[in-house]
Amino acid sequence: MRIKFIVPIITREPLDRLKEGLLPYVSPGTKLEVESIRYGTESNESFFDEAVNSIGVLELAEKAQNEGFDGVFIECMLDLGLEAAREKLYIPVVGPGRIAMLCAGDLADTFSVVTVLENSISPFKHLASSTGLRDRLVSVRSIEIPVVSLKDNARLLPTLLNESVLAIEEDGAHAIILGCTRMLGAEKKLTRLLAERGHIVPVISGIPLGLKYLEMLIHLNLSQSKLSYMTPPEKKVDFREGIHISGDVDVDESIL
Amino acid sequence: MRIKFIVPIITREPLDRLKEGLLPYVSPGTKLEVESIRYGTESNESFFDEAVNSIGVLELAEKAQNEGFDGVFIECMLDLGLEAAREKLYIPVVGPGRIAMLCAGDLADTFSVVTVLENSISPFKHLASSTGLRDRLVSVRSIEIPVVSLKDNARLLPTLLNESVLAIEEDGAHAIILGCTRMLGAEKKLTRLLAERGHIVPVISGIPLGLKYLEMLIHLNLSQSKLSYMTPPEKKVDFREGIHISGDVDVDESIL
Amino acid sequence: MRIKFIVPIITREPLDRLKEGLLPYVSPGTKLEVESIRYGTESNESFFDEAVNSIGVLELAEKAQNEGFDGVFIECMLDLGLEAAREKLYIPVVGPGRIAMLCAGDLADTFSVVTVLENSISPFKHLASSTGLRDRLVSVRSIEIPVVSLKDNARLLPTLLNESVLAIEEDGAHAIILGCTRMLGAEKKLTRLLAERGHIVPVISGIPLGLKYLEMLIHLNLSQSKLSYMTPPEKKVDFREGIHISGDVDVDESIL
Amino acid sequence: MRIKFIVPIITREPLDRLKEGLLPYVSPGTKLEVESIRYGTESNESFFDEAVNSIGVLELAEKAQNEGFDGVFIECMLDLGLEAAREKLYIPVVGPGRIAMLCAGDLADTFSVVTVLENSISPFKHLASSTGLRDRLVSVRSIEIPVVSLKDNARLLPTLLNESVLAIEEDGAHAIILGCTRMLGAEKKLTRLLAERGHIVPVISGIPLGLKYLEMLIHLNLSQSKLSYMTPPEKKVDFREGIHISGDVDVDESIL
Amino acid sequence: MRIKFIVPIITREPLDRLKEGLLPYVSPGTKLEVESIRYGTESNESFFDEAVNSIGVLELAEKAQNEGFDGVFIECMLDLGLEAAREKLYIPVVGPGRIAMLCAGDLADTFSVVTVLENSISPFKHLASSTGLRDRLVSVRSIEIPVVSLKDNARLLPTLLNESVLAIEEDGAHAIILGCTRMLGAEKKLTRLLAERGHIVPVISGIPLGLKYLEMLIHLNLSQSKLSYMTPPEKKVDFREGIHISGDVDVDESIL
Amino acid sequence: MRIKFIVPIITREPLDRLKEGLLPYVSPGTKLEVESIRYGTESNESFFDEAVNSIGVLELAEKAQNEGFDGVFIECMLDLGLEAAREKLYIPVVGPGRIAMLCAGDLADTFSVVTVLENSISPFKHLASSTGLRDRLVSVRSIEIPVVSLKDNARLLPTLLNESVLAIEEDGAHAIILGCTRMLGAEKKLTRLLAERGHIVPVISGIPLGLKYLEMLIHLNLSQSKLSYMTPPEKKVDFREGIHISGDVDVDESIL
Repeated sequence: MRIKFIVPIITREPLDRLKEGLLPYVSPGTKLEVESIRYGTESNESFFDEAVNSIGVLELAEKAQNEGFDGVFIECMLDLGLEAAREKLYIPVVGPGRIAMLCAGDLADTFSVVTVLENSISPFKHLASSTGLRDRLVSVRSIEIPVVSLKDNARLLPTLLNESVLAIEEDGAHAIILGCTRMLGAEKKLTRLLAERGHIVPVISGIPLGLKYLEMLIHLNLSQSKLSYMTPPEKKVDFREGIHISGDVDVDESIL
Repeated sequence: MRIKFIVPIITREPLDRLKEGLLPYVSPGTKLEVESIRYGTESNESFFDEAVNSIGVLELAEKAQNEGFDGVFIECMLDLGLEAAREKLYIPVVGPGRIAMLCAGDLADTFSVVTVLENSISPFKHLASSTGLRDRLVSVRSIEIPVVSLKDNARLLPTLLNESVLAIEEDGAHAIILGCTRMLGAEKKLTRLLAERGHIVPVISGIPLGLKYLEMLIHLNLSQSKLSYMTPPEKKVDFREGIHISGDVDVDESIL
Repeated sequence: MRIKFIVPIITREPLDRLKEGLLPYVSPGTKLEVESIRYGTESNESFFDEAVNSIGVLELAEKAQNEGFDGVFIECMLDLGLEAAREKLYIPVVGPGRIAMLCAGDLADTFSVVTVLENSISPFKHLASSTGLRDRLVSVRSIEIPVVSLKDNARLLPTLLNESVLAIEEDGAHAIILGCTRMLGAEKKLTRLLAERGHIVPVISGIPLGLKYLEMLIHLNLSQSKLSYMTPPEKKVDFREGIHISGDVDVDESIL
Repeated sequence: MRIKFIVPIITREPLDRLKEGLLPYVSPGTKLEVESIRYGTESNESFFDEAVNSIGVLELAEKAQNEGFDGVFIECMLDLGLEAAREKLYIPVVGPGRIAMLCAGDLADTFSVVTVLENSISPFKHLASSTGLRDRLVSVRSIEIPVVSLKDNARLLPTLLNESVLAIEEDGAHAIILGCTRMLGAEKKLTRLLAERGHIVPVISGIPLGLKYLEMLIHLNLSQSKLSYMTPPEKKVDFREGIHISGDVDVDESIL
Repeated sequence: MRIKFIVPIITREPLDRLKEGLLPYVSPGTKLEVESIRYGTESNESFFDEAVNSIGVLELAEKAQNEGFDGVFIECMLDLGLEAAREKLYIPVVGPGRIAMLCAGDLADTFSVVTVLENSISPFKHLASSTGLRDRLVSVRSIEIPVVSLKDNARLLPTLLNESVLAIEEDGAHAIILGCTRMLGAEKKLTRLLAERGHIVPVISGIPLGLKYLEMLIHLNLSQSKLSYMTPPEKKVDFREGIHISGDVDVDESIL
Repeated sequence: MRIKFIVPIITREPLDRLKEGLLPYVSPGTKLEVESIRYGTESNESFFDEAVNSIGVLELAEKAQNEGFDGVFIECMLDLGLEAAREKLYIPVVGPGRIAMLCAGDLADTFSVVTVLENSISPFKHLASSTGLRDRLVSVRSIEIPVVSLKDNARLLPTLLNESVLAIEEDGAHAIILGCTRMLGAEKKLTRLLAERGHIVPVISGIPLGLKYLEMLIHLNLSQSKLSYMTPPEKKVDFREGIHISGDVDVDESIL
């Protein structure tokens, strides 16, 4: 089984090392190939990032199918580019966000997402709506640490714990979804810390769940419905020119 | 990994042979133990069957946890006894009905269940409501072959195909869920026959999906939330006497 | 008019005395017969209790119809066994939980259930979902007094009042449903105490409402739809052996 | 127990005779007083009729409370003026439309309304939405006989039967609500005729159900929540002048 | 373009001066005619007011169409009489409440209504339900200043600001709808004051939005669907007699 | 007032001529600037097209704000790039799809979209879900004419009429939304042809409605909520390299 693992950001991190860290989460026979998009932004935290990086995901997803991969994994809890890639491909395409919500919806009555920045709150609510489980998502909380600062951040676990406890005690969450794939590894400690506080709840981490789910789909010969994700009509596409999107932020001074 | 596979009906079928047929659907390291309930009805097709057979499921589920199993699978698309067993146990309990709907909800916009008898239609609608995906379930259709007559029934595949085509073309289904675990094996042929008619849709079979999903939960150390499925308070239970439930049907002549 | 009043727990309380207390809530011509199940648990506070005690309800309900009763009342706000009994019977079967929610939904925009233990919270949410009024149920609160300790409990009214006031002022409830039939009698005092605090809201008690509603259905010749609650197919049922369900609680030490 | 029965149309029918026909539907001790509004339209079949006749209902409802009645019944399946009257009064006010839907929602998974004219279809859908059971109402069908022609109309039962069969077989209804109180009496025959066709479903008639329900509320000391139906602030009201609303229909010729 | 602006209360205010204040909100070519109803109550704050004043709205709306107006505007955020008037007329009829919610639903994920008295809270929730956006309305808050005291009230802006900040920070509102048309003019200052507190959100005022929307409909030849708002059947209407509705408030002493 | 009109496809059509055709739909003082994206696909008919063309929309939208435009219009009924552009900009951004649904939801109980190809059906259902009006959208029908063949296509009006009549008579639509902005101009004839068949319903065309709505927002100083559409965090963006997305369609031969 060959799985293409798409990193939907521009990154300088050594992908070989990233791949090594993923191996515990796939079955012995699975071959994983990791590739990042060549253009776009350095993290995914907003509708804007989703729009900018989706096209790179499509490029890699299409290539993966042409090269004979059995499935495609998009490493972002916002499932960016998922629907477009599912249309273009016949092999299964999985994003961890949607399946995390569906699994939480199975194991618990209600769930919260604890994510990186408040910019991701609206995108997560939209994801829950399109998944059909908007009523079960009782809150989206943010730890206010940007994705690029997550790695080896000593504040990660304490803030995750704090927001998770608030999600459970204030918002009524019965399960916690980690809102960024790069929180990978925190799920075990967070589960234990919550249990020590009397809250025995599932803590769902996107990469482990998503990779296992994709393996399961491939194993069972299941893929996205081509009635829901119809193959796009053949048409002219032109992308020769470069693109000029800025990462700067304009502030409307006049309104203040 | 040890999984307890509960057959929630009274049956005379050789369970060893049943177990043999299940082995292709579990991973190499998984040990499967199959056991049927000792009392109840011979099939599950109604709320009545669910109520009658749930208690036997609880008995076996509790025993399984005491014997050190890692997870429990309840072999019935109606997920009978699921919620009660999840309360009583801390190891993960999976019924294939709910997860089949969640997986269909991931892979497709809409889905239909094609089940055995029209008696199961209301129970499946209730299952979809409690799963939160009632809006996505566009129809429940029945082939009108009782569970006990499914085996080696030459009519199974043609009627399944016929109802599935109607579900897609008349009701707008984009995925098909087989409504009885004992339709096991029909998913591959049905997928091909539907594709030949131009409908490339996932056909979901409960046992393969449910067993793989349970393995995934065990592998990831995930289990039901004890906030949603709280441990029941200790209390007096008395079950020494026998029970007298009839399988007969009373007809109200006066109304006609 | 003959009504069978099923007490869905094992109990040693003198049923004659219970019956006497119910007489003010039925019309002069109504004959009430009270019977408790012979096996099961001593109270209903969880999905587990529902699953264990449903079969005893079915046994009594079936007997009642055979003996010519006009209707069956199941004395539990969780409506345990209701759907199965409605399938098996053609005479009307009423549980007080669902009708309490429907009546609250008529008299008020929103309502809360104030129940015994937090174990009942999830079951009540499920009941509201299947009733179709999940959006109107703004909270389920518990007084943390087990059913078996309710009787003559001096703490009952003060805690009921406290939680009801919180339901109204914090959660936005416009009506209160007493979450256990054995809170019978508290509705009048609670109504007055809430009114004294400026909250003129309906307080709904399950037994009075449910019995009157069942009388109304019988009087109007209304019963459950046999399209929603189809008569179960005739089939083999075997219940000769005893059942071994424990009331003990296993604790997963390993998770802590 | 004294109940005010408001006939929310201008009518020349002898109200004594109407009252006589209602007596079988109230309990022995109940005193019924029947009164029609003094101004408005001769039937209720649209939002327009609701708006025009509500004020007359308010006038009579307010008078009833002042005269010491215990409850008010508004004889119209569209529940016209119900919410305003509930605000103004503290005694319970019942309209048969909403409770018919709630009762149908208890006894069946789905229901249809079979009403007089297609003009009432939108108002019934709005009523279902405000009741919270819009998803359960699978269709509103009309027999195209105006209210004023219902009495002794030989076509009533055959067309009711025809539309009810279509509601069940085409739309999936599991219960039938008669969409006009003046179809009173048809429920028994229709129930039998549907049963003869194999459809054992509840047929709900507004006056019997509504009157019994109102008696039940009065008996149980239940009334509308004053948090949902707050007493209107005291203010200046002026109604000395007459009103000029026409019953004529303007047709926009220009659009054709 | 000629627009009829209906003031749905009895009022002594000089309508010419009111009209003058409205002119900035209509396009140069638009002719506005302002008329108040001749009977009814002096403000709209409850279901009761809606029921009482709707008939006056119908009278003026019908007259407007007969006189050749191109559209009708009803000046009340509760959209009183809207549905009935839309049935009777073929020219577009607009109430500001519904369109304010739809516009808020476009510009923001969630919104709150900040209204005059708590009596209006339930009517606004009903309006949101019938608009289909009940889930997006996170709260209805009141400033507890009656409509008749709004004008030149120094407390208006501070209390509006206070409740709006609570709506945003406590309830999660992303847009604010002013709950009374007579708060006209406060939207600009409130927008600025909220922005100064870091909340850049749309503040929607009913008259400006509603008038512009009506102009847009007229310009585009759009009007209400005559399938949703069918022309009422011709029938006898009688309104010669006066009506006796009191503005007094009865208090039920017995309950306390 | 200066509006940027973004054509979100690569096109060779003379934009001056397109602009000329739009002038009747904007107010006298409005200055319209029309610009197409420089890269992407030649039409928008799928999730794939949305993902590919969104980035070009962002580029132009950002430029428009920098150049001092007052608002941005995205010419596509699928509202592609809308959410991302709303995050990046503070001036109002309007896509015609969402507002068409909201307007249809105001004028009618139910509506259908009649679009170009069946590939657009799922995207339109997703748009309705995120708009919150999924329940009101009774069907999405396609005329099976690709966007690029719409112009001067003699089949357009007859097929539009045919599908609209089916939407009304079979699916229960009370309003019709034209599913492609390039059906511009068909709305008037279609309205008349439907009225001749007795169906007086609004027919909503995206460009006229969307442009007028955007003018209205600008006029009223309303824009998207910055709480729902938060300004994205500043971050590194790299787009120097070209992109390689094919317009070809891969077919999975193995499945057939």
